[in-house]
Amino acid sequence: MDKRIRCSELESKIVSAEEAALLVKDGMVVGASGFTPAGYPKAVPLAIAERAENGEKLGITLITGASVGDELDGALARAGVVRKRYPYQTNKSMRDSINAGEIAYADMHLSHVPQWIKYGYFGNIDVAIVEAVAITEDGGIVPSTSIGNSNVLVDMADVVIVEINTSQPESLEGIHDIYSPANPPHRKPIPVLNPEDRIGTTYIPCDPEKIKAIVYSDITDKTRGVTPIDEDSKKVSKFIIDFLKDEIKAGRMPEKLLPLQSGVGSVANAILGGLCESDFENLNIYSEVLQDSVLDLIDCGKVDVASATSLTISPERLDDFYENFDKYRDKIILRPQEISNNPEVIRRLGVIAMNTAIEFDIYGNVNSTNVNGVRMMNGIGGSGDFARNAYLTIFITMSTAKNGTLSSVVPFVKHVDHTEHDVHVVVTEQGIADLRGLSPKEKAITIIENCVHPDFKEELMEYYENSLKESSHLHTPHDLSKVFAKKEAAKAD
Amino acid sequence: MDKRIRCSELESKIVSAEEAALLVKDGMVVGASGFTPAGYPKAVPLAIAERAENGEKLGITLITGASVGDELDGALARAGVVRKRYPYQTNKSMRDSINAGEIAYADMHLSHVPQWIKYGYFGNIDVAIVEAVAITEDGGIVPSTSIGNSNVLVDMADVVIVEINTSQPESLEGIHDIYSPANPPHRKPIPVLNPEDRIGTTYIPCDPEKIKAIVYSDITDKTRGVTPIDEDSKKVSKFIIDFLKDEIKAGRMPEKLLPLQSGVGSVANAILGGLCESDFENLNIYSEVLQDSVLDLIDCGKVDVASATSLTISPERLDDFYENFDKYRDKIILRPQEISNNPEVIRRLGVIAMNTAIEFDIYGNVNSTNVNGVRMMNGIGGSGDFARNAYLTIFITMSTAKNGTLSSVVPFVKHVDHTEHDVHVVVTEQGIADLRGLSPKEKAITIIENCVHPDFKEELMEYYENSLKESSHLHTPHDLSKVFAKKEAAKAD
Ligand SMILES: CC(C)(COP(=O)(O)OP(=O)(O)OC[C@H]1O[C@@H](n2cnc3c(N)ncnc32)[C@H](O)[C@@H]1OP(=O)(O)O)[C@@H](O)C(=O)NCCC(=O)NCCS
Ligand SMILES: CC(C)(COP(=O)(O)OP(=O)(O)OC[C@H]1O[C@@H](n2cnc3c(N)ncnc32)[C@H](O)[C@@H]1OP(=O)(O)O)[C@@H](O)C(=O)NCCC(=O)NCCS
Repeated sequence: MDKRIRCSELESKIVSAEEAALLVKDGMVVGASGFTPAGYPKAVPLAIAERAENGEKLGITLITGASVGDELDGALARAGVVRKRYPYQTNKSMRDSINAGEIAYADMHLSHVPQWIKYGYFGNIDVAIVEAVAITEDGGIVPSTSIGNSNVLVDMADVVIVEINTSQPESLEGIHDIYSPANPPHRKPIPVLNPEDRIGTTYIPCDPEKIKAIVYSDITDKTRGVTPIDEDSKKVSKFIIDFLKDEIKAGRMPEKLLPLQSGVGSVANAILGGLCESDFENLNIYSEVLQDSVLDLIDCGKVDVASATSLTISPERLDDFYENFDKYRDKIILRPQEISNNPEVIRRLGVIAMNTAIEFDIYGNVNSTNVNGVRMMNGIGGSGDFARNAYLTIFITMSTAKNGTLSSVVPFVKHVDHTEHDVHVVVTEQGIADLRGLSPKEKAITIIENCVHPDFKEELMEYYENSLKESSHLHTPHDLSKVFAKKEAAKAD
Repeated sequence: MDKRIRCSELESKIVSAEEAALLVKDGMVVGASGFTPAGYPKAVPLAIAERAENGEKLGITLITGASVGDELDGALARAGVVRKRYPYQTNKSMRDSINAGEIAYADMHLSHVPQWIKYGYFGNIDVAIVEAVAITEDGGIVPSTSIGNSNVLVDMADVVIVEINTSQPESLEGIHDIYSPANPPHRKPIPVLNPEDRIGTTYIPCDPEKIKAIVYSDITDKTRGVTPIDEDSKKVSKFIIDFLKDEIKAGRMPEKLLPLQSGVGSVANAILGGLCESDFENLNIYSEVLQDSVLDLIDCGKVDVASATSLTISPERLDDFYENFDKYRDKIILRPQEISNNPEVIRRLGVIAMNTAIEFDIYGNVNSTNVNGVRMMNGIGGSGDFARNAYLTIFITMSTAKNGTLSSVVPFVKHVDHTEHDVHVVVTEQGIADLRGLSPKEKAITIIENCVHPDFKEELMEYYENSLKESSHLHTPHDLSKVFAKKEAAKAD
């Protein structure tokens, strides 16, 4: 017997992707594993897409952990199979269909999704499709490179399809820690007291009866390459490191810092990477996503433990990672996003949250989702879970966009994802602004002085000073008739 | 010895309010008890104000639990003593000074305040002034009608001034439950698993050495009267009750509901009051503030336990309340706002959050703070703590404002306090809209159809339909050049 399937009664469930795909029917709510292009099912979604491409009427609601790779989001979006999408996405085809108004997308805090599934807010979950590296003797599903909502979906779905992905090494078994709190009024404290605490099982418990199909696949995760770290990112990284050092000096931060969270993407990766050259020691990561920079930090001995719900290593780095997996395995824990993004745990641990923004305004409100207020990029993701509950909340953006023609600091953001109440520090390659405890007017001055690109400083100061003159009230002075008047507001890309 | 001061070494600390006030010096950071016009110090603030009125240069930063009564916020604002104010306010003089740009106000989530004090984000706390009904043998301070941040302020301040208020009955002793989590990385789970759980002491522990002055006062809490419940509030209350019943039927809500939170003010009071006529039994309240309606609910046998940080009973009801206090005392728990508003506990218990808004927009964003985007009303208070973490989050507003001349549902709110990600249900006297799981466009249709006043329906539908035509992208269609163009945007009251 293949040692990837250790539950003998399940051997009879092995089918082709095409056969498994038939379990998904028009109108169904389908949940899938996956968080970033890591750990998502690939063969079955491709087979589902093919059915639609062959003319079958097939429309589903798709719920995942977060964004997923092209075999799921891309293929299904292009085939017109997705009617509704929750809760986050980054795939170009998916995004285009959403912005064309063809797919109804609802953008959600990632920590809300698992409990919504459990509360029944999405209705019945008809099918869960989850990628795994193995199935245990009792039908337990051992996830691959992410967990996301897999455990909750498996628990709530009528039917479970497992994709055993042989491109994902079995050595991943053991890094997962599955735990799901009960629904209110029976919920208990989540017993994570330190980033390294293990509180659950290494597999997703599943009644073997529910597993109706098992599919073998060897399609690799389509993780993104990491772009080389540029000068501007290095500047941002240095501003943040110096800021953290000052916090320690001021007695507001422990010497070894507190657990770090960092958003996804190249800038976020660069900022974490910058810590390799810092004096910090024995760092912990408590985040959603572990990227290459976390491996660097483990390599240089800076990080003791890194907890997240997804492991998204660049293609360039992947072989080396698995070859040296023994060096990393004891330092990495993957958790369900119900735990990695849980406000209870984030607050208790006192996470330092670093996320990137599209733009922020002079009063400290942040737009993370909609370019020009109308073009949906990805979604809020976990940024709100971390920003609201962190010990220290930092938002990062480069001071200009579109080749320097637009300022990323504006009078009034065109979409608000994080309000003034949730933003402690903003930083661009121009500088860093500590907004804690400041009134709106003090924030405006500090932001304009420290973060705005020289090309736009005068313009913003003029808006602010004019508002001071024109505004009927002077707590948050505004001349709102002006804020969206600029030409750029009309054209959105 | 007066049995209100049971620690004999403290008897020597009894001084006049004027003498105690001298402990407060120009430039100091002063923390005070108080949450709503309940449990705030009165005599000492009046004496501080007098010093400034007599010409002394005196400016302070003032941190309280939330809003407080006129003897503190009003008197100090009028005397020009407050330079900076955190985190919430409702007093007319305070609000006017803030809107005139004379007092720097920073609006904060109430759950963030206690940890900011403990993290040192406000700097050193020079003096804490707290109202009490008694001092225990060991110097423990027994709070009066609210706790707010008193325990944290007492712990962190260099100097503590206690106002023993003889208008507050000693029988209040025993209803408080004081507990404060450690700072990260040493924080443990907060052991509140049910609204009735008591996890701490009935007094605020305090080294008697720190208490530098004790002042007697008999000035009563200046709680507000409750306006009679009007027809529109009754309609809203009925919409919500029917909605909750449907949730139970759909299996998404336990029969006895989950703990209820309700905002402050007459509408919020009316909505809770409406439950007296409902079929619900054995209800629990887990809120910030207990108003008259909670007494009604206890009277009619509907409520088993009510937990909050403030007890703000109308003047009309107060005598009766204290006369029959035995009926209420076992059902009421007052906690620090660090616990009443804690995301960890709110989420675990699965609170149903009902808060009022100034306006909301067709995509489900809520403005709770700034009328016309510039006139600060009160602040976000605890509404964000509850909205983000609740099992079910409801925002309420009447469909029109200013005698029917303005719609409270708009294309784009002029200040965002709660984003689309945090709002499950919106309700006006026109109807209720369930936004869970809807895409922005579905939200717009549902909100316009159900919640908008007939006078404004056409206008809003026109905006929406025009945006569908004009917007370059169709996920959240907007024509932003139009949203703040209306005349009302310029004049703010
Ligand atoms: C906000 C976010 C989209 C920024 O990502 P990024 O990779 O740094 O963004 P980019 O610089 O590539 O900008 C994305 C697009 O917005 C455009 N843009 C960025 N800033 C802009 C601005 N101020 N005005 C107009 N357009 C802007 C860019 O030009 C780019 O457009 P393009 O795709 O046409 O080139 C991303 O961090 C995100 O999705 N955040 C929310 C979720 C999150 O934080 N997750 C982490 C925890 S899950
Ligand atoms: C939002 C909030 C101010 C509403 O309170 P309320 O008593 O229902 O509000 P009112 O109807 O009295 O309106 C307040 C003012 O705003 C004005 N207003 C209300 N809606 C308006 C609108 N849509 N457009 C313009 N003005 C509006 C009213 O006319 C009134 O102005 P006035 O003082 O000049 O008469 C209040 O609920 C609040 O402070 N909320 C935030 C904090 C919170 O929720 N706390 C509860 C947990 S702490």
